[in-house]
Amino acid sequence: MTDTVKYVLDESKLPKRWYNIMADLPSAPPAVLHPGTKQPVGPDDLAPLFPMALIAQEVSTEREIDIPEPVREIYRQWRPSPLYRARRLEKALQTPAKIYYKYEGVSPSGSHKPNTAVAQAFYNKEAGVKKITTETGAGQWGSSLAFAGALFGIEIKVYMVRVSYDQKPYRRALMETYGAKCVPSPSMETNSGRAILEKRKDHPGSLGIAISEAVEVAATHEDTKYALGSVLNHVLMHQTIVGQETMAQLEMAGDYPDVLIGCTGGGSNFAGLVFPFLGAQLRGGKKVRVVAVEPSACPSLTRGKYAYDFGDTAHLTPLVKMHTLGSTFTPPGFHAGGLRYHGMAPLVSFCKELGLLEAVAYHQRPCFDAGVQFARVEGILPAPEANHAIRAAIDEALRCKAEGRSRVIVFNLSGHGHFDMQAYLDYFANKLLDQDYDQQELATALAGLPSVAKAA
Amino acid sequence: MTDTVKYVLDESKLPKRWYNIMADLPSAPPAVLHPGTKQPVGPDDLAPLFPMALIAQEVSTEREIDIPEPVREIYRQWRPSPLYRARRLEKALQTPAKIYYKYEGVSPSGSHKPNTAVAQAFYNKEAGVKKITTETGAGQWGSSLAFAGALFGIEIKVYMVRVSYDQKPYRRALMETYGAKCVPSPSMETNSGRAILEKRKDHPGSLGIAISEAVEVAATHEDTKYALGSVLNHVLMHQTIVGQETMAQLEMAGDYPDVLIGCTGGGSNFAGLVFPFLGAQLRGGKKVRVVAVEPSACPSLTRGKYAYDFGDTAHLTPLVKMHTLGSTFTPPGFHAGGLRYHGMAPLVSFCKELGLLEAVAYHQRPCFDAGVQFARVEGILPAPEANHAIRAAIDEALRCKAEGRSRVIVFNLSGHGHFDMQAYLDYFANKLLDQDYDQQELATALAGLPSVAKAA
Repeated sequence: MTDTVKYVLDESKLPKRWYNIMADLPSAPPAVLHPGTKQPVGPDDLAPLFPMALIAQEVSTEREIDIPEPVREIYRQWRPSPLYRARRLEKALQTPAKIYYKYEGVSPSGSHKPNTAVAQAFYNKEAGVKKITTETGAGQWGSSLAFAGALFGIEIKVYMVRVSYDQKPYRRALMETYGAKCVPSPSMETNSGRAILEKRKDHPGSLGIAISEAVEVAATHEDTKYALGSVLNHVLMHQTIVGQETMAQLEMAGDYPDVLIGCTGGGSNFAGLVFPFLGAQLRGGKKVRVVAVEPSACPSLTRGKYAYDFGDTAHLTPLVKMHTLGSTFTPPGFHAGGLRYHGMAPLVSFCKELGLLEAVAYHQRPCFDAGVQFARVEGILPAPEANHAIRAAIDEALRCKAEGRSRVIVFNLSGHGHFDMQAYLDYFANKLLDQDYDQQELATALAGLPSVAKAA
Repeated sequence: MTDTVKYVLDESKLPKRWYNIMADLPSAPPAVLHPGTKQPVGPDDLAPLFPMALIAQEVSTEREIDIPEPVREIYRQWRPSPLYRARRLEKALQTPAKIYYKYEGVSPSGSHKPNTAVAQAFYNKEAGVKKITTETGAGQWGSSLAFAGALFGIEIKVYMVRVSYDQKPYRRALMETYGAKCVPSPSMETNSGRAILEKRKDHPGSLGIAISEAVEVAATHEDTKYALGSVLNHVLMHQTIVGQETMAQLEMAGDYPDVLIGCTGGGSNFAGLVFPFLGAQLRGGKKVRVVAVEPSACPSLTRGKYAYDFGDTAHLTPLVKMHTLGSTFTPPGFHAGGLRYHGMAPLVSFCKELGLLEAVAYHQRPCFDAGVQFARVEGILPAPEANHAIRAAIDEALRCKAEGRSRVIVFNLSGHGHFDMQAYLDYFANKLLDQDYDQQELATALAGLPSVAKAA
């Protein structure tokens, strides 16, 4: 009845290096383009936004990059994180499959986000940066950067999507407790924000707008840099500590994954889990099926176009080639705020184009069904984002049962849901809607994609 | 700058036995009395409420009691919990003291409460119990028992203080996600509840009333038992896994506490940390200063009377000798809902009478000051209850600084504050009041103490 199987890595096994999948890809991913010239960007173009160490990581092709000791020291507060065998879930499903999950909810802010927040804060501190701006939707990223900023003594300013700012005061309170300043976006503090508010005074905001504001402030202030919580190469790389630990823990268990599953918003928790395994495969190791799970309401990988697009609404960011729904795309309401981004990490997109991974989209209600089932047998209440990964893992396990064969299924439980209880209340009150995105909205957003000549 | 020092016990070191301080006390604590006869209760008197195994633990004088393997298996989901050296806090305070904290917020419900919830659910399951009733204030205990009930397939019904039920829907959502049924108390489901509602239809409820309702239902239903989250001997004993782990972890660190600190509501997280150390002292080991920290608004140990009293409002529970403010005492509003009980665990009270521990009371604002300072340097956002322990630990460390001497300070960080963000919002909005209890209220409540002949 009570099978708890937890794989704990000794602290001495905490990875010493991040893994960079760029080294193992069969070809280089498309270049990042300057938003004005549409030519490949150089380090100097990015220097107003990021410290040089992170720019170097963004374009590095080294397979491994040393994790600085001060970053590892902070990681050790909650890392290595546990890997669990979900034996109670397996029994409940009566599946012959083995289900494992890596649990990132043990971090101080309750998700995988501090893995990169701490690293980014460190490199900014090293570069003498005094302030960092960023955006946040549901608040997972903002609170993680606030945590990291507090530890390194860097002032953090978070542009928070206004509708979340109003509806989710508790995430804001967490950021403020860590000492960060939180501003509802669109705000009157930036040109981007003012332009939006002039057209519509009560604009609810969006991640794309909040990014524009944060980028604008960083670009126009000498002592201020910008930080992004997902999408970029260096961010995904920082998350590979998740997959590396998982590999070592599965080795303890004597297993290797047949299927790897993660939810995808910008792509960082997913890439963090799967890239080390894909790298091993690309270097001649065992092939593993990799499944990205996204919300049907914001399905960049399954319904987006693989094209150059902006990361933000005001078109201040460089152009990256990715699966995108168009930078103006606004999804219908759903609770997994971390999965509401119009684009997908260029590296994840490129891997999809290379056939290294598949993607699947789910509506939110079946995901909450899965999350509640999981909570009742495994005891951990998952974040709505993570419920997508659980849904896919359960469906895979049920397929194993139908086929009468065992597979090793591994998924990333990227965070706990203690800040998302309103979503569960709505679920139990039968108030969750399974809305599809608006077809016209998508067509319009895709029609607005920037025209870009063939990348250099 | 980034000193993270975490002591991780190997799973093989997870304690195999709970520690029972009854074996080491110089004399037996006063007997528990029947509420009707005022004579010492026997096991049969308690049988309607608890399974026999827990009743046996309640009166046991064995020093060690084996933890059943299925309970240890579930403990292993989050245990052994980490012990941290608060080096960043020490630096911020510029204190020569060494500060350690045991972190119980890593459990699925975010506090120490599952340590006993899992044990109680196990023994009830063994006894064939189908339903358990309980009460909850802020919801830490209710959600922990809901978690344990889900794992063992026992139906959990939680009488939740009405004002919390209305103001804290997220804790309720957590209980419901685990499958528990949550009822605002006072309710129309019980005689106790109906009697209160007849006098006052909009009664906000209290822990004492909710206990009466839960006890009444258990006492009048064959297949239903009752569970309490603190106060009782067996509950405190289940928590001693905290102190035993801490002992082993401090041994790894090469230190032994000079001062042990815990916050006290019913007394269970406090006793869980300190009893194993007090036991060692009573057996001739090193003397350690032990400090219980309580809210000034509900100061049972510092302002209560050591006397026989009821545990509930409707006077359905047995009489226990404890530090009490009187069972009708209603404290003014403050945010640490887990510290709002009128009484103190009889074993903690007895230890205070024996001079084994001291108590101190704080208002809530200085406690939140301490909690916010702690969050910004240590990265963990504490529950309002735990802020009391942090306040006392910081004050002790500052005394060390003033005296120019080092001491080893160890406190229990009993839970995270992710469900308590409204309290932090109120703190930052300067809305927290530092109210004292009402002197007349206390006088009236103490005047109403039951008259009990000298205990047998």
